[in-house]
Amino acid sequence: MADEKWKTGITDAKPNKILMRGYPVDELLGKISFAQAIYLVIKGEFPSPEVGKLIDAIFVSSVDHGAGPPSVLAARTVASTGGELNSAIAAGVLAISRFHGGAIEEGQRLFLEIAKRAEADGGNEEKAIRDVLNEMKVQGKRASGFGHRLHTKDPRTARLFAMAEELKLAGKHVRIARGVEKALAEQQGKILPINVDGAIAALLCDLGIPSEIGNAFFIISRVPGLVAHIHEEKIRMKPMRKIDPENFEYDGPPERKVP
Amino acid sequence: MADEKWKTGITDAKPNKILMRGYPVDELLGKISFAQAIYLVIKGEFPSPEVGKLIDAIFVSSVDHGAGPPSVLAARTVASTGGELNSAIAAGVLAISRFHGGAIEEGQRLFLEIAKRAEADGGNEEKAIRDVLNEMKVQGKRASGFGHRLHTKDPRTARLFAMAEELKLAGKHVRIARGVEKALAEQQGKILPINVDGAIAALLCDLGIPSEIGNAFFIISRVPGLVAHIHEEKIRMKPMRKIDPENFEYDGPPERKVP
Amino acid sequence: MADEKWKTGITDAKPNKILMRGYPVDELLGKISFAQAIYLVIKGEFPSPEVGKLIDAIFVSSVDHGAGPPSVLAARTVASTGGELNSAIAAGVLAISRFHGGAIEEGQRLFLEIAKRAEADGGNEEKAIRDVLNEMKVQGKRASGFGHRLHTKDPRTARLFAMAEELKLAGKHVRIARGVEKALAEQQGKILPINVDGAIAALLCDLGIPSEIGNAFFIISRVPGLVAHIHEEKIRMKPMRKIDPENFEYDGPPERKVP
Amino acid sequence: MADEKWKTGITDAKPNKILMRGYPVDELLGKISFAQAIYLVIKGEFPSPEVGKLIDAIFVSSVDHGAGPPSVLAARTVASTGGELNSAIAAGVLAISRFHGGAIEEGQRLFLEIAKRAEADGGNEEKAIRDVLNEMKVQGKRASGFGHRLHTKDPRTARLFAMAEELKLAGKHVRIARGVEKALAEQQGKILPINVDGAIAALLCDLGIPSEIGNAFFIISRVPGLVAHIHEEKIRMKPMRKIDPENFEYDGPPERKVP
Repeated sequence: MADEKWKTGITDAKPNKILMRGYPVDELLGKISFAQAIYLVIKGEFPSPEVGKLIDAIFVSSVDHGAGPPSVLAARTVASTGGELNSAIAAGVLAISRFHGGAIEEGQRLFLEIAKRAEADGGNEEKAIRDVLNEMKVQGKRASGFGHRLHTKDPRTARLFAMAEELKLAGKHVRIARGVEKALAEQQGKILPINVDGAIAALLCDLGIPSEIGNAFFIISRVPGLVAHIHEEKIRMKPMRKIDPENFEYDGPPERKVP
Repeated sequence: MADEKWKTGITDAKPNKILMRGYPVDELLGKISFAQAIYLVIKGEFPSPEVGKLIDAIFVSSVDHGAGPPSVLAARTVASTGGELNSAIAAGVLAISRFHGGAIEEGQRLFLEIAKRAEADGGNEEKAIRDVLNEMKVQGKRASGFGHRLHTKDPRTARLFAMAEELKLAGKHVRIARGVEKALAEQQGKILPINVDGAIAALLCDLGIPSEIGNAFFIISRVPGLVAHIHEEKIRMKPMRKIDPENFEYDGPPERKVP
Repeated sequence: MADEKWKTGITDAKPNKILMRGYPVDELLGKISFAQAIYLVIKGEFPSPEVGKLIDAIFVSSVDHGAGPPSVLAARTVASTGGELNSAIAAGVLAISRFHGGAIEEGQRLFLEIAKRAEADGGNEEKAIRDVLNEMKVQGKRASGFGHRLHTKDPRTARLFAMAEELKLAGKHVRIARGVEKALAEQQGKILPINVDGAIAALLCDLGIPSEIGNAFFIISRVPGLVAHIHEEKIRMKPMRKIDPENFEYDGPPERKVP
Repeated sequence: MADEKWKTGITDAKPNKILMRGYPVDELLGKISFAQAIYLVIKGEFPSPEVGKLIDAIFVSSVDHGAGPPSVLAARTVASTGGELNSAIAAGVLAISRFHGGAIEEGQRLFLEIAKRAEADGGNEEKAIRDVLNEMKVQGKRASGFGHRLHTKDPRTARLFAMAEELKLAGKHVRIARGVEKALAEQQGKILPINVDGAIAALLCDLGIPSEIGNAFFIISRVPGLVAHIHEEKIRMKPMRKIDPENFEYDGPPERKVP
């Protein structure tokens, strides 16, 4: 048994040659974007340029949303004690969990369950949506990926869905997500708009990404934002300060136009 | 004092509007790549398309290099105990430290020190290189970013430098890195080629990224690779297996051409 | 709302006075053991000397069991990359999860469920045990805390239970654990002895520790063992070595008598 | 080479027998305290009962000091996102770093350096203290382990030192620590009392614990406190609340006498 080698299908590293999912890494440089490389290493398939564009947009959408989220506070707290860069990033990642970032995985499971039921029922998505939402109501569960504390209309959601339509990548799960939004409004008598997590969940389902790693897309997207906050904490703040989670103010550049 | 707000210059999150370094995030979607967004959030400046391409290549170069590195083993070990996705990623990030990934930060410090000395000496880079390497020899230190256990000629290095030249982004620090490679060969009587960490270190210096966050570029690049390994561990392996750090075998797709 | 203070009932830290669960910490020094202090801070109640002795034994039992467990491998892997002491400990803690250490929490839940059913049924523990085990069999679940890869008769289990009897601290849940062992032998036709995790689970139930923090007792106990391994890795091994999870050998002091 | 086994001197785990530093773990149960077992696994030597008492007191002294320290805030932040117990502990441990808990390691290095110099100078400790403090003043460094934001006279320090005297375990480094306190008062014209970290640093030096693992004693001591805070956060607070680092209030039991 000691002679039997365990198997991995991700990367073959030989002297002077590294094959990632079969492609020589050096040949990928300049040919594909980082977002495409992420899709490639995770899914094992080479993404089309369209998929690359959508993945890029998904990642851009969640890089940062201010100094208040728990992942930022955990990362800054560790940085403030003099912790290393990797420790502070790790603490931030540990705070991306069920209630922060977790809506992607839960949203994916919701949309996949509805899709499965609709398929079993001759494609009747409306009924599947109604049934699932009613069951959730009885169990006291709320739909992940809908509603937002701050944004009544998350500007990122509309843009992500529009891009997916243009790129011909919006499929069944985007349709289901919109159906859930509509049904929730009827069920609850108020609008709970799809938020950015819900939108990403629907898009990842349409891209064939399993729900088990849905949260990874949030984590991958957010690590660079955490790095920016950790660096700002280290160069701008005193060590061991009390980091108030609400009482902060933006003093960066004013609104400017994308070139 | 309780009334004084602490300041952050990264992101302004208001209802229905998120400004990252001044740019509305929704307007960035579809306009910039993830790599450009990373540069933007970390440096605070909008990257040119050329910078975006080089950053994309830097990130693509380090996504994964097989199942053997400690970050992969730490992440798989946690995944194998039934740990959550974010826990396994965090453990992998904690293993990206001084001897694994750390060559970027140390390489940057080396190139920046040489550049500083050369500048103080009328631009004599050759002398600055010789002086610094001689001092390091006396102190028993070796130059970070040169030489590799596996690759005698890292295929990624040549490609990254060629791209930087084409994109007119190779500057003083790339020149210094090449000078160090030449001087090391003379000093030690054998070739210690610039490895991918050394190449990235030189490029990050030319891009104006401070050495304190150089390792972040490796971490950001590697997290997606860790996700691929964690997912493979969870769906393909039995929990609590003994993960041999050497006795594994690639069984993924054979070499294929980049489309 | 900004004026409303959030509440904590654990420790009151005032100038020159620290009250933990109401007791001045300086007055506790020399009066109670670390194990008693752990019980005090977690449960909020002052432990009797008997409880202190049993808690001490529980913690002593799980400090270390060799270099093979995933928590040790994760901690050594991070230490081997030059990671900080706290990073290596954190990585080790992240590897104490569902399949490694998690048997305590799951064992507690099993014993509590049986106790609850027996109570609802006039105290018939035998029937409750049979019913629960039968249901688990149908669902394909195995009982956590029973059986061991290495030990057919875990020497720590007998000692822990004997101590609990002597100290008059063995109660309903220890009795249930023994009943489960007996019923499992009948159900499966082979002996699956209570292992140390199962024994600790039963004792923690009898001590009134909630199952949600059962694993904490393993983590608290194991952190010192991780520290010993991290220190040994740093002073005895080369950085970045390949850490074989099986191919190691003990070369410490031979068996010796406890003074 | 594949046949060569790597060596570990900590624990020998054989079927039905676990030897920690040579002692059968089951025979240790009931014979030694957790604190003694920690000393045993880390140092490799069986502690006398006196050493056990002092170690117990060191650990009891740092279990918790309220809800404000960064390790508690990091752990509560992760718990508040729905993170697992082990994730929240790991985040707390990552926040125990240079400026929080790190004074133990730095204090040890200070006392060891002074002891080394005094020894080289015929035992003249007063001169060694003066020299080292003067050098530190020139370099703009401050002595770790002296002074406290909250306590002008840390009640734990006096008690720890008194116990060490009673137990005949206070040695050269305790004497040096007191000398540093005196010299600092003269040098700075104000009293910077030895704080609990400084006291622990001196005691660990006298116990022969290397400075590299000094911080481990704080981490080991504090993990149970973190568990208490994580559990309180989970059962008493709403998920995703904003955790103010200052605006909290103790509502636990009022001061009570140690039984």
